[in-house]
Amino acid sequence: MKLYCGKVNEKFINKQVTIKGWIKKIRKMGSITFLDISDRYGLVQVIADETIKLDNLTRESVVQVKGTVVARKTPNDKLKTGKIEIKCSALKVLSLAKTTPMIVEDVTDALEDIRLQHRYLDLRRNVVRDKIIFRSKFINELRNYLVKQDFVDVETPCLAKPTPEGARDYIVPTRNAPNHFWALPQSPQIFKQLLMVAGFLKYFQIAKCFRDEDLRADRQPEFTQLDMEMSFIEEKDIMRVVEKMFKHALKKTMNLEIQTPFRVMQYDDCMNFYGVDKPDLRYNLKLADLSQYFEGTQFKIFNNILLDKGVVKGFAIDQKLMTKNEFETVQKFATDKGLQIAYITFKDGHKFEGSIARIIEDGKANTAFNSFGFKTGTLILCAGKQDKVNATLGAARIACNNIYKFANPDELAFTWVVNWPLFEYDEETGKYAAAHHPFTSPSKQSLKNFDTDKANARARAYDIVLNGYEIGGGSIRITNTSIQKRMFNAIGLTPEQAQAKFGYLLNAFDYGVPPHGGIAIGLDRLIMILTKADTIRDVIAFPKNSHGIDLMLDAPSAASAEGLDDLFLQVKEK
Amino acid sequence: MKLYCGKVNEKFINKQVTIKGWIKKIRKMGSITFLDISDRYGLVQVIADETIKLDNLTRESVVQVKGTVVARKTPNDKLKTGKIEIKCSALKVLSLAKTTPMIVEDVTDALEDIRLQHRYLDLRRNVVRDKIIFRSKFINELRNYLVKQDFVDVETPCLAKPTPEGARDYIVPTRNAPNHFWALPQSPQIFKQLLMVAGFLKYFQIAKCFRDEDLRADRQPEFTQLDMEMSFIEEKDIMRVVEKMFKHALKKTMNLEIQTPFRVMQYDDCMNFYGVDKPDLRYNLKLADLSQYFEGTQFKIFNNILLDKGVVKGFAIDQKLMTKNEFETVQKFATDKGLQIAYITFKDGHKFEGSIARIIEDGKANTAFNSFGFKTGTLILCAGKQDKVNATLGAARIACNNIYKFANPDELAFTWVVNWPLFEYDEETGKYAAAHHPFTSPSKQSLKNFDTDKANARARAYDIVLNGYEIGGGSIRITNTSIQKRMFNAIGLTPEQAQAKFGYLLNAFDYGVPPHGGIAIGLDRLIMILTKADTIRDVIAFPKNSHGIDLMLDAPSAASAEGLDDLFLQVKEK
Repeated sequence: MKLYCGKVNEKFINKQVTIKGWIKKIRKMGSITFLDISDRYGLVQVIADETIKLDNLTRESVVQVKGTVVARKTPNDKLKTGKIEIKCSALKVLSLAKTTPMIVEDVTDALEDIRLQHRYLDLRRNVVRDKIIFRSKFINELRNYLVKQDFVDVETPCLAKPTPEGARDYIVPTRNAPNHFWALPQSPQIFKQLLMVAGFLKYFQIAKCFRDEDLRADRQPEFTQLDMEMSFIEEKDIMRVVEKMFKHALKKTMNLEIQTPFRVMQYDDCMNFYGVDKPDLRYNLKLADLSQYFEGTQFKIFNNILLDKGVVKGFAIDQKLMTKNEFETVQKFATDKGLQIAYITFKDGHKFEGSIARIIEDGKANTAFNSFGFKTGTLILCAGKQDKVNATLGAARIACNNIYKFANPDELAFTWVVNWPLFEYDEETGKYAAAHHPFTSPSKQSLKNFDTDKANARARAYDIVLNGYEIGGGSIRITNTSIQKRMFNAIGLTPEQAQAKFGYLLNAFDYGVPPHGGIAIGLDRLIMILTKADTIRDVIAFPKNSHGIDLMLDAPSAASAEGLDDLFLQVKEK
Repeated sequence: MKLYCGKVNEKFINKQVTIKGWIKKIRKMGSITFLDISDRYGLVQVIADETIKLDNLTRESVVQVKGTVVARKTPNDKLKTGKIEIKCSALKVLSLAKTTPMIVEDVTDALEDIRLQHRYLDLRRNVVRDKIIFRSKFINELRNYLVKQDFVDVETPCLAKPTPEGARDYIVPTRNAPNHFWALPQSPQIFKQLLMVAGFLKYFQIAKCFRDEDLRADRQPEFTQLDMEMSFIEEKDIMRVVEKMFKHALKKTMNLEIQTPFRVMQYDDCMNFYGVDKPDLRYNLKLADLSQYFEGTQFKIFNNILLDKGVVKGFAIDQKLMTKNEFETVQKFATDKGLQIAYITFKDGHKFEGSIARIIEDGKANTAFNSFGFKTGTLILCAGKQDKVNATLGAARIACNNIYKFANPDELAFTWVVNWPLFEYDEETGKYAAAHHPFTSPSKQSLKNFDTDKANARARAYDIVLNGYEIGGGSIRITNTSIQKRMFNAIGLTPEQAQAKFGYLLNAFDYGVPPHGGIAIGLDRLIMILTKADTIRDVIAFPKNSHGIDLMLDAPSAASAEGLDDLFLQVKEK
């Protein structure tokens, strides 16, 4: 009987079986040799006596073993197959392995570059391969839910049209026409809107997307998103579908029951209470405006800021007395956001130590700290203009969690963030740009004056946030031509430029467009969170490294001169 | 109550409903107007009296209708919603449509270029959209089957390594390094083999693949394949999985019961009996060697060919007396394959008419025709070297079916074709190349001398054929280093060249490779056959036209000089 290594168990005792797998360990004990043989399903112990030829056999070699399943005298509870072992009657080496360039075990000391260069060995480690297997199962359950809800899975083109600015598209030359290029899509945005014009009503796709951008540690040049769009709906319809889809998939794959509907937070509240637009709600440390407690303080810096319409805000950490070292770690992380922070510790309701402990009046400090309802702990403070104070404290809040580990690693804290600004102000150019993209509908309250009061205009946009990461975002789209024209005008596009950039979508809207909206979920990041991986590279089978290089393939790599000739191209002289 | 147009039925009579959809027809009858309003689920009739404002309302506009469902006096049996209609109490225009550039109905006179340019309207036609919806459902059932069988769905990179010859890869420049390129994969072949080295055991992926080739009518620069690979298996294991997967998906999506296992044909038999390597088995017209009947014939051409070790082969068509016109159509199609054909008709067992009826002896002709067991009908003949005779008659056989429509359009005739030649002889270069790819294992019988007797070497390769189309192919791979070296040598690759081209795969095989094999199924073509579409363009949401142009996007298109600058490229001067 042929069995997978990990599926041999006590039901097969006294049966003849054949297994095939990779040798993980070879231990010789006198005339007996113990072999651990493994496959995707697990590991089984094989005993070979001296009649079995094992000369030169190496770890990671692929073998076929025939033998009889027998009960172990001393069962190993840690192993699925621990109640049995296989007494080998014949062993055949299918592929003899050389010494591997890295340790192929759950714990390895290999550097990431070595792991990526030999990804086929890295993926042989259960802890790595299991994440890819989870990815497969999880995405399949997302699909199953959507297909049951009558969503249509539509493949949109990878060879598409370059956007005129072109900075971040990958472009693809073709042998069939000189100086003509395809572009790899940054998202299927326009295609999915066209599918709504075509009457598909409910669309989804697990879509590969591409961005030729400067690489950050948590980005990949190609990434995968779950892309969705629906017609005749409002924000809540999209939100309910996404929640139910996650509920289904998490139950099926992780046996988790999550609460739905998810919490919904106003964008302004996010910024005010958590200092970020993607708050990690697994721990509290909520920011509070403490200005009232520091009015007229002898600490000149705070007092001047308050007189200058600034704010003093802070958050309190119950029970923890922050050390100077810890504070310096937090400060280093937070001051990237533009402002200095300060801290004061308290014992039994009274000021104790801290960077500004000696400067601030006892009464003011104690009252501010006590306003959180705590007696002993640490108060982190920041003063200045509201936006920068929020951002700085938001970073400090994250740094404190990094130190004290308040967040439960097993918790999934989903939240929606809604009511986003419609525009983003660019301090360099002094101009407003679309915060999301120019097809995002203004909120109903902003419809009248979004183009004249850009600073306050709000969007029918929604992000979904999990444990401090943005895992997706979407919006209700503009489908009214006059609003779309005002929008283009607001971001400084002439009608001619708008037509050149988005003409085929705008033309489509002339022939009967339903109201529609959608969302895109970043699957790499979501699966990274669910598998508790350190980087998105861990949940991608063959990732690029953090510099955008595929070390296994040694790509990107040079093309031949003839190859470029065929494409009517040459490398530019400097 | 909100309902989809196509889901309003007699259960809702006397209920207030709201529907949203596209106006397909507007008929004014005195003071009453009938509106046909449609969505993906179907069409419903709305009656509006003169209180409802309908000024300027156009076909294809998107409207919201509130009203009461009432029974129709004269039900329309052809319509799902034909027992009812909606008495409109309020109508709101959500999007007013301009006159469409094509008729948006199942039957349209629009040329394909117009349809592709306005694909969002073409897709609004039920006959087109339904094919894309079928595609979604069918592919989802393929996935479901494979996931249940513990296959892992792994996404492999789109940005991969250019193959050194590079002729047919799309290459992709990047801003991050001058003269460095990614390549879009022609298939995930090497990645899936690496996944076997990594121990995934069973892999699949619905993979987008790319080829920058000269375009034929039934090819697209990007296409979709179901890619699979398994470890520790033989041909029959792959074949059984594919059969069961199709059985499952066809039952679920089309309620079809297909017979499994599929027929298995030897490659040589295909060529001898059908003249092609992808026979359409829905009709017979089997080729037979008729040489014996024409030995010593007075028809010099046949006689000389037979004396020169050639053959006379043919097939017979029962009951059909081919006309001269029909024969000319068949001949035109067949002679592309290199030889002339001839025909003779028979009535009641006796020679009647035909291109060589007067030249061939009655007795020989009648005996040859009667050998098929027919009395009345047509005999198609061809003489020459075996290979060309087969190819010519294979084409003639297809042409005859095109005329007489023997094939049942509802039948699905699957067959495997096995025992393929390992090499292909290139008459131009006088060299042998790998018929499939150089990782295809020689058959067990060919292992000894495949590299010394290339003409007769056979491969462990298998194609799956449906109704005369190759819908997929695969093989058991070489995993033995010494056989792989002999294979590279046989196709003229030096060890250095082999290492440069396939080094990372060969290196991986040094660390424990399981025996493995797989298959790739061309989904565009398969779904074209299942939906009885005319071209694969009909089953792709946003296809390129037959010249490889996306008419809707107007792509590929020119890149800006600055865009190319960023990529360190310039267009080559002639």
